[in-house]
Parts: sequence; C-alpha cells; structure tokens
Amino acid sequence: MNVTLNGRPTHHRTVSFDAPTNRVQLIDQRLLPHQFQILATPHYRATAQAIRDMAVRGAGAIGATAAYGLAQGLRAFTGTSPAKFAAHTHKVYQTLAEARPTAVDPLNAMDGLLRALLPGATVAEQQALALAAAEQFAQDNVAHCAAIGQHGAPLIRAGQNILTHCNAGWLAFVDHGTATAPLYAAHAAGRQFTVYCDETRPRCQGSTLTAWELAQQGLPHHIIADNAAGHLMQRGQIHLVIVGSDRVLGRTGEIANKIGTYTKAVLAHRHRIPFYVAIPLSTLDWQTPRGLDIPIEERADDEVLGAWGVTPRGRRTYIRIANPGSTARNPGFDVTPPELITGIITPRGIYRPQDLWRHRRQLGGPD
Amino acid sequence: MNVTLNGRPTHHRTVSFDAPTNRVQLIDQRLLPHQFQILATPHYRATAQAIRDMAVRGAGAIGATAAYGLAQGLRAFTGTSPAKFAAHTHKVYQTLAEARPTAVDPLNAMDGLLRALLPGATVAEQQALALAAAEQFAQDNVAHCAAIGQHGAPLIRAGQNILTHCNAGWLAFVDHGTATAPLYAAHAAGRQFTVYCDETRPRCQGSTLTAWELAQQGLPHHIIADNAAGHLMQRGQIHLVIVGSDRVLGRTGEIANKIGTYTKAVLAHRHRIPFYVAIPLSTLDWQTPRGLDIPIEERADDEVLGAWGVTPRGRRTYIRIANPGSTARNPGFDVTPPELITGIITPRGIYRPQDLWRHRRQLGGPD
Repeated sequence: MNVTLNGRPTHHRTVSFDAPTNRVQLIDQRLLPHQFQILATPHYRATAQAIRDMAVRGAGAIGATAAYGLAQGLRAFTGTSPAKFAAHTHKVYQTLAEARPTAVDPLNAMDGLLRALLPGATVAEQQALALAAAEQFAQDNVAHCAAIGQHGAPLIRAGQNILTHCNAGWLAFVDHGTATAPLYAAHAAGRQFTVYCDETRPRCQGSTLTAWELAQQGLPHHIIADNAAGHLMQRGQIHLVIVGSDRVLGRTGEIANKIGTYTKAVLAHRHRIPFYVAIPLSTLDWQTPRGLDIPIEERADDEVLGAWGVTPRGRRTYIRIANPGSTARNPGFDVTPPELITGIITPRGIYRPQDLWRHRRQLGGPD
Repeated sequence: MNVTLNGRPTHHRTVSFDAPTNRVQLIDQRLLPHQFQILATPHYRATAQAIRDMAVRGAGAIGATAAYGLAQGLRAFTGTSPAKFAAHTHKVYQTLAEARPTAVDPLNAMDGLLRALLPGATVAEQQALALAAAEQFAQDNVAHCAAIGQHGAPLIRAGQNILTHCNAGWLAFVDHGTATAPLYAAHAAGRQFTVYCDETRPRCQGSTLTAWELAQQGLPHHIIADNAAGHLMQRGQIHLVIVGSDRVLGRTGEIANKIGTYTKAVLAHRHRIPFYVAIPLSTLDWQTPRGLDIPIEERADDEVLGAWGVTPRGRRTYIRIANPGSTARNPGFDVTPPELITGIITPRGIYRPQDLWRHRRQLGGPD
C-alpha cells in the first residue's frame, strides 16, 4: 500500500526483496507510527534477528520474511558442492525457524520453498528456484489479501462507520491486510465511510499501526478507547465490525483473536450490528476440537501497567501508568463463539462460521 | 481512609475545608498514584478549575468540593448589600456548575447549601450558614458511604474475584467511596477476596486511583486491560461486579457512569454475573425522563491519543501513543439500562433499578 512521505504517496510492501543486493527489506514496525524507516538486512542472520526483535510481526509478514530470508541465505552460498549446500540450507532454515519458535507461519513458508527445490539441480539453479519460490509466496499472500478485499468490500456502504480491533492490516501481511483489505477496496471504489479504530490495549496496535496505515491511504478514521465501542453502538454510530484472527477453528467456527475481540462481538450481537472476521486460508485450524483447547498466552505485566510512546520532546520511552507495586493479569487473546459472528471473509468468499466444516474441501481443509 | 506515607498510615479525607484561610483542600488526583500532594485552592474560581481539570473527580468528591467552593465564594464577598450578595452567589454557583456539565452532584450539593441560607439574614450570617451547610454535606457524605459499605458487604463471599471499573472509591467521595465501600467493609470483616481493577482508559482511573486505594488498605488486587474482562468472565474468573455512577435516573433505573461501564454490564448479563451499582442518594436524578436525555460529555482527544505516567527515570510525563495526525472520539460516559443491573446499593439498602420510583419517598425523591 502507499506510504505518504513528504506529501508524496509511494508504494511499499511490508516485506520485499532486492535481488541485486540480496537484501530483505522490511518496514521497521518497532518505530511506527512515530518514524518510518526501511530495515534492509544484509544476510539471513540479520533477517532472523529482525523477526526475533519484532521489527516485523503478523502471520503473513513473518512468513514472507522467513521465505525471503531462506532464499537470501541460499543465494549467499559461494561453493558448488551439493552436500555442502544442503548442510548450509539446513543451517539457514534452523536459524530462521528459531527466531520466533512458537510461530507456525515461518515454518510453513520455508517448507513450501524447500519443496520447490529440485534434487539434482546445480547450486546456482537451486538458488534461482529458491528466489522464485520466495517471490511466489509473497505474491500469493498479496493475491489472497486482495481477494479478501474484493469479497468484503460490498459489505461496506457509503456513510457507514466501521469498527476494527487491533491490527489485521497490511503491516501484518505483505500487502492489503485482512480486516483492512475490504476497507481499502471499498475506498478504492470511491465509497466514503469512516473507520473507528479500537486503541487495543495493552499494546495499542489499533491506535499505532492501524491508524498509521489508514492515514497513509487517506482513509478518514477516529481512534477510540476500547471502552467507547459499546456506547457508540448503543447510539447507532457503528454500522459494521471487521476484525482479523490468529486462529479460526474449522470444526466449530470459533475464532481466537486479540484480547477484547470477544467483547466487541458480544456488543455487536446485542445491537444487531454485523460482525465479520477476515482471514487467509492459512489461519484455518482443522484439528483443534474446541475453543477451550486453544492455549491463551498470558503476557508480561508491564504491557498493562504502562505504555510506549514519544514524549513532547520526541523521545521514545516507556512510562509506568499504574500504581507502583500493583500487579496485572494480561491474557493476550480471547475466543469468540460462532453465534456472535455474521461471517468469515476468506479469499474464496464469505462463509457463516458454522458452515466452514461443510465447505472444508473448498477452503483447503481435510477430506 | 488511610494513606501510607513513610510507612506510617495516616487518615485523610479526599476533600476538606480550612476555614481560617478559606481554602478548599483536595488530594490532587492528577498526581496519584506516583505522588501524594494536597492542592489548596485560594478562591472559588480555582476550585471550579480543580473540578474542571479533574484534580478532584468522582460524584461525592465533586459534590463536596462544589459545596465547599460555594461556601468559599460566599465567604470571600466583602460587601453588605443583600442584592449584590445574591448576584455574587448566582455567579459563584454558575461558575462551579459549569465546571462539569454532566454531573448532577455539584448541583444537588449547592442547591442544598442554598436552602440552608435564611432570607433576611445578614451577609455575615449567610456566610456562616453556608460554611456550616458545606461541612454538614461532607459529614453526611461520609456517613452515607459507610452505610453503603454495610449494605453491600454481605454480597461478597470469601474466595471471589470482584470486578470494578474506574474509581468509585474513597477518592471519588469524601471517604469510604461507594463501589469500594462494600470491599472495605468485607475486608474489615476478615473476608479474603481479590479485586480486579479495569484499567479504565483513557484516563486510567482504575490502574492509578483504585489500585492505589486498594494498595493503601492492603486489599489483594490485579489490574486488567479493559479488553480482558470479557475473557475472564467467559472463563468463570469474575464472580461479582460493583461500579459507581454519576447519575441514576429514578424514573427509569438507567445509570450513567464512566465510559465502558455499559460494556461491562452487557458482558456480566451474558454470563449471569451479578452487576451492582453503588450510589449515595444525591446521585439519584428524579427529573430526567430517560437516559438518552443525559448529555454525554465529549472530552479532549489527547486523553485517547496518549497517556500520563512516569519514565524509568521517575519523571512524570505525557506520551503520545497514537499515530501522529490521527484524531479521536472520546465520549466520557455511557448509559446502562436497568435490565442489565442486578441492584442499586444505597445508604438505605439495595433496590432493583426498576423499583427506585416506587420507593422514591424512602430514597429522598419527590412525592
């Protein structure tokens, strides 16, 4: 999508690759929204470090970064011995896999790339195949998000106010995003509407990343405290909710997403406001039998007890907000049951959550 | 209640009056929890400013502050003309009334004080009557909160987790508080339980003021993001909710309170968790016909776009969290309908919200 620098919009992907210099190029998300900077990693170890340090985050974005990082590592190999190349490939894969050990997307992305290599090909040929496979992975990610946008855009009518939670935007993917893709597509089609961004405490991805994204594309938006959505719904000022998800259970239609998503779904249901969840097919989990089995990560206290931002003098800092000595509970995710969800927007179309299992073959699920 | 300074608990009221210097003395709540400081306002305009700036906040505390501020203003009148004194009284009243337009307590408190003035008395006599009435108002406030504690304490059982929102603690009144009064009374009776404090963005009164209060009295508690309450309720980890209110409509049983209260009531109702609202009688509004008629104050953007706290070096500062250039919507309050409320805890006992009108004579309402 566009980034507006010095008043001039320029197109950027969250993750891209510069083949001549063999560098992975990342929008450094640790500095946003206060500073825009491209982090170009000169070798695969630096790419792994960028994943580890969360310079890049979001399922699709770290998947693509790992795929590019693997291609980058293989292209840096200077010998011709297939055996040594295989050992090198293993080392690069391990280094990138260990950067974010709980995430599944980097593994899936790199496994796909390895399947594209041809046994018996020369080292130079393997390097070319790796690059082509990484580019294809990123391109597919873009195409899937664009398809979500095309399916979701007709839900948005002129004059509406649309609520979103956390950041399921293009920064979390290679481009377009999931929850934001319908917004960008409707905006591109000339429809006028306003986005309400939940701040999304404790990490504030809504007021930082989503608001930054929307501002870059020129979409009218307001940030609200997470507490305000109920009131705005009660007064008829929210007409549609679109969120992303970290995991959608194909068997039950339950969705896991950033803490607070469940609350918004309960409120939307009470007020008969459509509530949609936008996901790529890779987010569908066909194995886990029920939402209670999804492990809910309890995160560090200091996220709740304070916040990150910049001082009036422009210095980036953490501040303690809460009473010194008080402790926090900080569940990172929650689970929303299917009866609160109007539809799941996928690259293949929109499905009722209860119908995912019935349509599992169409959605890449098991027989 | 107690404030623990240098390891020694000392008793403080939130609001008091120093008659010899004609100053209102307030615990400056903008500095808490990081610093404890008394703000002494030299004249009624400074007192109104303290209400507007939220150096003092909370229904009872701003009621007592307005009463003291009115007495302070009348005592500063130096003439003897009853007509000029009446005009002055009107001006002081208006200034204090306009400091917080959503709240009814300052109006009730000041109206009570005006009723204590005797027509035909001298200016000096009126000034003395005003002071006595303000002191009586504060003393009644303390007694009412203590009575709320006695009525509410039996709702709390050992081992429970009790959620509260914002600060309806002793800092919001002259002493004891309303939502916290049952907690303090049950704790004093030896019951063991845990309080969950909603952070209460955007101003974070829960993580700052309520957590500070509870820590001063030694009550076990955790702070949570406002987003987390729904998940905890869904997992059976919240057993009771007690909140305060800025205005309870005697005719309908609707309650206005800090933004986010409505959301917690909707969630509690879904999970069949008892939801109580604790108020003094002065919070009852017998005139306003329905909740939609309550004006909802839209507050400054920067509350939502950033936060106040202290840096790792101990310096108090505001930080901008949100994307630079993005704007916010910031409604300060919301309205919860009676069907979501289990009971209203008052100094006279606990009432179903739908029964307030029927019991209006007992509750100090109209005939």
